[in-house]
Amino acid sequence: MQDALIRLTDYWAGRGCLVAQPMNTEVGAGTLNPATALRVLGPEPWRVAYTEPSVRPDDSRYGDNPNRLQTHTQFQVILKPEPGDAQEQYLGSLAALGVDLRAHDVRFVEDDWASPALGAWGLGWEVWLDGLEITQFTYFQQSGGLTLDPVSVEITYGMERILMALQGVSHFKDIAYAPGISYGEAFGQAEYEMSRYYLDDADIATNRELFEAYAAEARRTLDARLPVPAHSYVLKCSHAFNVLDARGAIGATERARAFARMRGLAHEVAALWVERRAELGHPLGDAAARPAPAEPGALPEAGPAGTFALEIGVEELPPHEAGRTAGHVAERLRDGLREAGLYTDASSLDTCATPRRIIVTVRGLEAREPDGEQVVKGPRLAAAYDDAGEPTRALRGFARGHGIDVADVGAVTVAGGEYAGFTRRVVGRSAAEVLAGLLPDLVAGLRSGKNMRWSAPGLSFARPVRWLLALLDDREVPFAVADLVAGRSTRVHRTSATPRVDVPDAASLTGVLREHGIEPVPSRRRARIAEDAAALARSRSGTVDLAAEHALVEEIVDLVEEPVAVLGSFDAKYLELPEEILTTVMRKHQRYLPVRGPSDRLLPHFVAVANGECDRDAVRAGNEAVLRARYEDASFFFRQDLRSTPEQLKEGLARLTFTEALGSMADRSSRIAALAADLAGRLGLTGAERAALARAAALAKFDLASSMVIELSGLAGTMAREYARRAGEDEAVARALYEMELPRSAGDALPGSVAGAVLAAADRLDLLAGLFAVGSAPTGSSDPFGLRRAALALTAILRDVPRLAPVTVGDGLALAARHQPVAVAPGALAEAERFIARRLEQNLLDEGRPVSVVRAVLPLAGAPAQAARAAADLEGLIGSPPFERLTTALQRVLRIVPDAAEAGYDPDLFTEPAEHALHEALTRVTAELTARPSLPEFADAASALVAPIDAYFDDVMVMAEDPGVRANRLGLLAAVRDAVAPVLGWREIA
Amino acid sequence: MQDALIRLTDYWAGRGCLVAQPMNTEVGAGTLNPATALRVLGPEPWRVAYTEPSVRPDDSRYGDNPNRLQTHTQFQVILKPEPGDAQEQYLGSLAALGVDLRAHDVRFVEDDWASPALGAWGLGWEVWLDGLEITQFTYFQQSGGLTLDPVSVEITYGMERILMALQGVSHFKDIAYAPGISYGEAFGQAEYEMSRYYLDDADIATNRELFEAYAAEARRTLDARLPVPAHSYVLKCSHAFNVLDARGAIGATERARAFARMRGLAHEVAALWVERRAELGHPLGDAAARPAPAEPGALPEAGPAGTFALEIGVEELPPHEAGRTAGHVAERLRDGLREAGLYTDASSLDTCATPRRIIVTVRGLEAREPDGEQVVKGPRLAAAYDDAGEPTRALRGFARGHGIDVADVGAVTVAGGEYAGFTRRVVGRSAAEVLAGLLPDLVAGLRSGKNMRWSAPGLSFARPVRWLLALLDDREVPFAVADLVAGRSTRVHRTSATPRVDVPDAASLTGVLREHGIEPVPSRRRARIAEDAAALARSRSGTVDLAAEHALVEEIVDLVEEPVAVLGSFDAKYLELPEEILTTVMRKHQRYLPVRGPSDRLLPHFVAVANGECDRDAVRAGNEAVLRARYEDASFFFRQDLRSTPEQLKEGLARLTFTEALGSMADRSSRIAALAADLAGRLGLTGAERAALARAAALAKFDLASSMVIELSGLAGTMAREYARRAGEDEAVARALYEMELPRSAGDALPGSVAGAVLAAADRLDLLAGLFAVGSAPTGSSDPFGLRRAALALTAILRDVPRLAPVTVGDGLALAARHQPVAVAPGALAEAERFIARRLEQNLLDEGRPVSVVRAVLPLAGAPAQAARAAADLEGLIGSPPFERLTTALQRVLRIVPDAAEAGYDPDLFTEPAEHALHEALTRVTAELTARPSLPEFADAASALVAPIDAYFDDVMVMAEDPGVRANRLGLLAAVRDAVAPVLGWREIA
Repeated sequence: MQDALIRLTDYWAGRGCLVAQPMNTEVGAGTLNPATALRVLGPEPWRVAYTEPSVRPDDSRYGDNPNRLQTHTQFQVILKPEPGDAQEQYLGSLAALGVDLRAHDVRFVEDDWASPALGAWGLGWEVWLDGLEITQFTYFQQSGGLTLDPVSVEITYGMERILMALQGVSHFKDIAYAPGISYGEAFGQAEYEMSRYYLDDADIATNRELFEAYAAEARRTLDARLPVPAHSYVLKCSHAFNVLDARGAIGATERARAFARMRGLAHEVAALWVERRAELGHPLGDAAARPAPAEPGALPEAGPAGTFALEIGVEELPPHEAGRTAGHVAERLRDGLREAGLYTDASSLDTCATPRRIIVTVRGLEAREPDGEQVVKGPRLAAAYDDAGEPTRALRGFARGHGIDVADVGAVTVAGGEYAGFTRRVVGRSAAEVLAGLLPDLVAGLRSGKNMRWSAPGLSFARPVRWLLALLDDREVPFAVADLVAGRSTRVHRTSATPRVDVPDAASLTGVLREHGIEPVPSRRRARIAEDAAALARSRSGTVDLAAEHALVEEIVDLVEEPVAVLGSFDAKYLELPEEILTTVMRKHQRYLPVRGPSDRLLPHFVAVANGECDRDAVRAGNEAVLRARYEDASFFFRQDLRSTPEQLKEGLARLTFTEALGSMADRSSRIAALAADLAGRLGLTGAERAALARAAALAKFDLASSMVIELSGLAGTMAREYARRAGEDEAVARALYEMELPRSAGDALPGSVAGAVLAAADRLDLLAGLFAVGSAPTGSSDPFGLRRAALALTAILRDVPRLAPVTVGDGLALAARHQPVAVAPGALAEAERFIARRLEQNLLDEGRPVSVVRAVLPLAGAPAQAARAAADLEGLIGSPPFERLTTALQRVLRIVPDAAEAGYDPDLFTEPAEHALHEALTRVTAELTARPSLPEFADAASALVAPIDAYFDDVMVMAEDPGVRANRLGLLAAVRDAVAPVLGWREIA
Repeated sequence: MQDALIRLTDYWAGRGCLVAQPMNTEVGAGTLNPATALRVLGPEPWRVAYTEPSVRPDDSRYGDNPNRLQTHTQFQVILKPEPGDAQEQYLGSLAALGVDLRAHDVRFVEDDWASPALGAWGLGWEVWLDGLEITQFTYFQQSGGLTLDPVSVEITYGMERILMALQGVSHFKDIAYAPGISYGEAFGQAEYEMSRYYLDDADIATNRELFEAYAAEARRTLDARLPVPAHSYVLKCSHAFNVLDARGAIGATERARAFARMRGLAHEVAALWVERRAELGHPLGDAAARPAPAEPGALPEAGPAGTFALEIGVEELPPHEAGRTAGHVAERLRDGLREAGLYTDASSLDTCATPRRIIVTVRGLEAREPDGEQVVKGPRLAAAYDDAGEPTRALRGFARGHGIDVADVGAVTVAGGEYAGFTRRVVGRSAAEVLAGLLPDLVAGLRSGKNMRWSAPGLSFARPVRWLLALLDDREVPFAVADLVAGRSTRVHRTSATPRVDVPDAASLTGVLREHGIEPVPSRRRARIAEDAAALARSRSGTVDLAAEHALVEEIVDLVEEPVAVLGSFDAKYLELPEEILTTVMRKHQRYLPVRGPSDRLLPHFVAVANGECDRDAVRAGNEAVLRARYEDASFFFRQDLRSTPEQLKEGLARLTFTEALGSMADRSSRIAALAADLAGRLGLTGAERAALARAAALAKFDLASSMVIELSGLAGTMAREYARRAGEDEAVARALYEMELPRSAGDALPGSVAGAVLAAADRLDLLAGLFAVGSAPTGSSDPFGLRRAALALTAILRDVPRLAPVTVGDGLALAARHQPVAVAPGALAEAERFIARRLEQNLLDEGRPVSVVRAVLPLAGAPAQAARAAADLEGLIGSPPFERLTTALQRVLRIVPDAAEAGYDPDLFTEPAEHALHEALTRVTAELTARPSLPEFADAASALVAPIDAYFDDVMVMAEDPGVRANRLGLLAAVRDAVAPVLGWREIA
């Protein structure tokens, strides 16, 4: 291991990195060392590499767990500014460690990093070596609340993992640390003793004192304008906090307060450091990104153009981003070309994408724009000729300036003014010229859901754009944007003998890529994965359920450029774990496809998909080792959890903060239970249902405190059911605990039991009411508490679980509001209700209901079941003559009655029979209807209003001169309006 | 610099060292990292290398000082067990750093290490590169109060110093740290800010709290038997203490308490670690030294022997050690050889020595021991023959056992018993056999004042013994001791092309060494140094005062094997500093000889003496740079001190602990002042003297708190005088402040002014009274407070400063005792007085007074002036007939009077005239004498007693039958005894 550290140090020192030392106080990660935390701030360039023994008290395992240590070794590299080829440099470092990059499957898998506590975030990847996460690779965007310019690359190697993989050992203690001495021999005792300290023996009162003393000293040194010691005290604070946390001594409020305090201090440290460096005149220089635009080449000769190919080369994009971006690029390109007249009905356009490239190919392009005319405006006509009608000096100058004879100037009208001028013919630009004009904006305009900056000035996208290929048939389309110049060169696998390849012409781009092993078309990759996975599974008499794994397959398609499926196996003993654990680990952590045997039973095999040709045995062995380690971990957690009863586990909820204002998860669990009781009171449950609900409510969310769910949050509910069953709870209780987490996503199953449904609804209502109350409604880009998902789930439950139909959103929120620990403003509840209604709207639209239908039923959104039924009914009614008549009549009413008009009239003021007739019809119809009529029932009954309404408009002068009479007549119509309003938004029906 | 760290890491990793990481809490030195502090304990082998940024708050200088940093970088290596060639391995590391070992002067200069706070000590060297201390090299002997077995070597590189030398820069900030970035650019801001924190901004109350919290946590983790976290908390304690200390917040009592507490904790940590490792079964194995004695070769054929040479090869011995040891070895060897009859009057013996070898050459040895006889004792005679006179079974067995005929057995007498037996002739052993028998014990018996152990089992000496050469003419004398086998191979300069050389025969050893540039004879090295230094000084029209520099030259002689004098120069601007500063730095720190010009003025030159041939320009440049840095430091301290008045400086004494029980140096200064006033009251000073004394006493020892004296303690007094003068104090005051430190060593000047003398005496009396009172009297090997020197100084002052003659040791101590903050037992004062008397005794013996004279005057030791005068007088009187008669008469008296007999008699009980005569003579003599007669005066007067005494013994039966009469007669003689006792110890006169 020390040899590996020496090699990395040598490698990065050779690439201009200063070699720093670990921090001389405990840090949780190399990022916290001032050589990173402070140096990434401000404009000064910085390159550094160092080893950082990283202390995480919470990971203490007495040295027993093969993969988890209270002190693990990071090797940390910062390149500031990011050099444009950090990925390639990084791969070079793996080669320096002795990794054969061609044999192994090295991948960059989306993994963004954010530390709200530090006001820091960045985008990047975890790097996988045969499925094992060995490195975190991040483009830092913000730190200490400050936006970073220039952007730094941070590369963090997890040394123990790398060494376990390189040495093929399965416990960190077995790593050969130095010749003749193992990791365990060198550090085993310290690992045990520090674990003892952190988990069992650290004195809580003393560590609280330490936290306070450190925070005070940080405060004081900030006041003295000394960011370096202040930073060190913030780190000490953080460590003291971590010790307390590992000892289980941090309550929800304390945690929130401590975080806020540390965050505040860290921000001040960052700001002060930046100030101080500026005062010192930035001794290391200024590397902030400055526009130094690249120069494109000359336009090619125009030709009889036909096919254009654009490739935007990027560093590995997050799944789905490439396809989505390809669509947008294609659309913008087509619009631009169409506007220029180059894209005609004879043209066609294709897109394809891989994680590293977005390709748009346009065929049948016109060779050039059509020619046109341009009016050239000169001086005002009045100033163009003197009294003698001779051209003035101004006019002569104008003519000379444009190189035409004065005689050829005439009168032109521009925007209503009269000017001297002339019309000239404009020759249409060549296709290349048009493209060269369009493409820079198109690249500069790339955006994704989550964008980053890098060294290219002015660009901002999901990941850095690294090359541009633009070919019009066999000619390069010259353009440049930021520091990039388009050309004919593409890039293939980084491990290829020729990682850059020239493409002869637009039409052969995909062919060239395929020659180099890259399949640019996602559907082909998908097909290859499906075929190969099926074949591999078959070899073990199994199958891969591609339909069930649809989302995973889509993700894999977006993770590789050349899918190579590899079959792996694991020890059958792990099949004793609940299946959801096994498949969750496979899917979520490893992106492996589970293999199933007869009657859908899980087999001890999996299919991993590597990126490109590799040594399959090596890749298989690597992936199997990773899965073994993960299953070993899971077994550990599972066994550990089973040592506690659900009640005991639930006590742990008190240590999990929900939010500062809304308390701990234990508080939330109590609120859910109380709210569930309220709801149950309105729903008429059987005794058995009531009992199951009460018991499940008492345990609600207990599994969030289990090790397994802390590790794999996707198993919430699943583990509750499992642990409840094993603790001997009734099946109805276990089921309710499971079902309260349903639906976990759109399209997921709904609770099947009323107890589960009530808890599920209560859970979401509490979440929405509470967070809207404290002003944590989601914004456009941020929804940290998953409120959209919660609202969708609530909608689905209230809509599709019949027993819950009586609950309205408004009632539910109001009940939930009563249990919140904060005052809930009525406005906040209204906002929440609107937010939920929008989810229903989207939901109905997604189901294919016409916009007008959806809008018409929205007034009913408070009762989603009713709204959904109404939408279905409405779609059936539309087009039937009686309903059309009714709609027409009602729309006449609605058109004339102002929104502000109040319902109410005095029959004594009636002067016309039609007034009496409408009054009577309305009275009759209202009396006939049940409380909540279905739409057809209502339409049927309300058809009695059609004739009276029509007569009313025919015979009665609504807008009478006499204000009293006018008001009375409008009041009658308003009564009609109000009577029909709860049923539908009549106005919206097309 | 980072390149240097990488090279060292590579180098030591290649030699089997585990590469560890710096400690993740602040440490003052690499030694404190558990990879050293804990791992050197116990029997397990361990090899480790690591970088350690070492934090010393007290060294904070805001980054301004070119050589001093609050965080400096150590590179630390531990080799356990010490491998036997650690010095050579270390030199290899310097070569790896690019140091040309043949061009530069690399030396191992005695520098032992001890941390009483850690209960740790070791012997070793600082390594000099052209006069610059670049490395600390220590054989650890104890740690945490535990004796270490096996012994570890610790090598600590001071990286900043090494890099400044290698890069030729004069400020640490200018070191090129990494390509394109300087040390200052990388760490300058941190250096400034952490200095600010440590010196100015650290909150004292908070850091006190931290200290307490850490100590409490250390206590708790010890109780939980977790040495690793406990160690880390002890380190945190220590850092918090250092912060407080740098902030000037540690009072004397607090310091003592804190040290005691940390020491106690550190000891417990060490003991617990050792226990825990034993419980774990010493996972890394057991490398404790086990006797595995080496095998010597066979004895050579005996020859007509003549010359024997023994060379004991060692690692660099402390100065004086080699010569002293050579003497002891020669003596033991001569005794052994003489006893065997090999060393005769025709033989001769020579010794010589260098720091690396002790050589004894014996010429004219006999070829073999003389033959002799041996009585072989059998069964008792009575049991040897049966009644029939036949040999018994026992006798026959005895004869058979010795292979002789029963008939040849006779009667022998052994220790008065009669046995059957025989006498056999024993052939004398060859010289080689005798030597092979003698030498192992001789080597195993090597001892010095301060001994260490290393990997050789059973050996213990000042430094490790590494080779043995033993040649009898041209034959090897085969012997082995511990792991060493003697042979004919010697070692020359380590940088030689052939560092090991075979020697053909005993007589040519010194010649072979000279051929390889080594001068084994100290007197020749001395002569060469003297000649070369004089010649170099002459080249600058200067001289070197070899007489004044005698001690320094002696030291240099013992520091080099091949003296090569190099002339260096320094900037003349430093001559503005007080000369004592310049010469102290040269002598004490650098062992340079100062060069003086006309009228003894210092010239800006010096002579350095390198060890062996080198590139003189490089060595000169290196030494000049070192001196420049030291003078720069001294200038800084000097200027800094001058910013304060003596009074202000004196305030700093409160921060210097003297001892826990006796308070701070400020307390001690006050006591000296008070005691000086007491003494002055008895001495009749003039008004001016009184005034000077009072003022000087008020400032006593103020310069101990000055930066200059803290740095160079040898300048105490000198700086006091300098600073007092510059502060405008009277010259008499300045002089007294200087003189109170006199004499600094045996033979040094004495105070010339009475004020100086009084303060000097008060200083020593306070020291002796206080430390004897608290039980800190020196032991055989340990005298940490320099009490021997103090007693010698006190004796010299009271003896040779006439104005102080009236002060007796007893009175002085009694007065001093009254000012101590502790109760002083009478026994303690008596012990102190005896201790001081022994110094006077030694003093007089050293002056050549006969033992009997010295013993005779010892009763007067309480008044050293009187005792000294008496000794001189006594030597003059001895031999004169009247004095002989007096002595004889008095000795008759003393022989008969028991010590217990009380003086006192009743003249009325006299029965003989002789009794009356003696009584009258005694009365007359006593009346005639003044209070303190000189010895000649006394002898003159007392001669009147001779005749009466003789008559008394002739005429009077002293031991009369009547007990009353007997008692009366003894009482008279006892009165004589008591009358003469104060003058001399008459019994002792030979």
